[in-house]
Amino acid sequence: MQLLEERILRDGRALSEDVLLVDSFLNHQVDTELMREVGEEFARLFKDAGVTRVATIEASGIAPAVMTAQALKTPMVILKKSKSSILQDGVIQTEVFSFTKNASYQLTLKSQFVRPGDRVLLIDDFLANGEAAFGGIRLLEQAGATVAGVGAVIAKAFQPGMGKLRAAGYRVEALAAIGSLSCGKIAFAEG
Amino acid sequence: MQLLEERILRDGRALSEDVLLVDSFLNHQVDTELMREVGEEFARLFKDAGVTRVATIEASGIAPAVMTAQALKTPMVILKKSKSSILQDGVIQTEVFSFTKNASYQLTLKSQFVRPGDRVLLIDDFLANGEAAFGGIRLLEQAGATVAGVGAVIAKAFQPGMGKLRAAGYRVEALAAIGSLSCGKIAFAEG
Repeated sequence: MQLLEERILRDGRALSEDVLLVDSFLNHQVDTELMREVGEEFARLFKDAGVTRVATIEASGIAPAVMTAQALKTPMVILKKSKSSILQDGVIQTEVFSFTKNASYQLTLKSQFVRPGDRVLLIDDFLANGEAAFGGIRLLEQAGATVAGVGAVIAKAFQPGMGKLRAAGYRVEALAAIGSLSCGKIAFAEG
Repeated sequence: MQLLEERILRDGRALSEDVLLVDSFLNHQVDTELMREVGEEFARLFKDAGVTRVATIEASGIAPAVMTAQALKTPMVILKKSKSSILQDGVIQTEVFSFTKNASYQLTLKSQFVRPGDRVLLIDDFLANGEAAFGGIRLLEQAGATVAGVGAVIAKAFQPGMGKLRAAGYRVEALAAIGSLSCGKIAFAEG
């Protein structure tokens, strides 16, 4: 998505070989108009995927996910992060390790909000190691849904998440794929 | 907002005298179309308030806030919750006590995303005791901005937040104001 790549080059900062700072338009300050275009682009990419629900993992995925759900005219479901494993009736959980925070959390879903027969598009702001995405997929499949695809606003293509998801048979679309962040320079992946 | 009140009556549940469960359309599963109408209603109410930015407190306020920002054609800023007080350059924080979680957190903002001269509309899903709203206001004013108003999708009018904010001189608009949740019955506040 050219508009997004241009914005990343203009306002993003490669803080290290692994960390891309985009908090001026994606996850702290949010460019609402860009998010609307992000949502419309995901909707275009997945328009024939029979999506019945958009899911995301709180909190930074919510803005692009709600815009995608708006464009696809579906509800959105927020998979919640809990510190503790407190299982109530109808609530399902899976443990996810966060490399960013070097800690685990319980990803949580009331299963009534995702039903067998649902085709769910999982949207997040970043795709890196894939831990969060695989956690979301485990929950959605445990609820009986089919994962129609995974959409990342930005994928760090030099980290294993995108490849592992595709190897597991999931469709992954990244609106911008970062090839490397070496020497403070942001380079996009080929193709 | 009649559409919202009807939805609360249909799908909300008074879990106790204090707790209204609306997770089937507002904060776990999100009705995207309702959120778009919520955003447009806030934009209508604050259309003459000179709003330059919409702010919210992660995570449940993000969906209504991004829709409000879209309708007002402004950026959105997410005030982040941190457990620890780690001050980096240009980052401001304030401690907020959460009655829901019976714990405090550090509400955090990179001050570059809110500037002197900005008129900020603070949007959240719930207004109850007002601790989060006052925390958000402290941060925004510390950044030099003027708070143009506070918009709550649902205010629990029987709790002190709304009254305290108005007594402190802030404009507060609630799209639905709950008068009581006694005996499992949801009653709206007068006027």
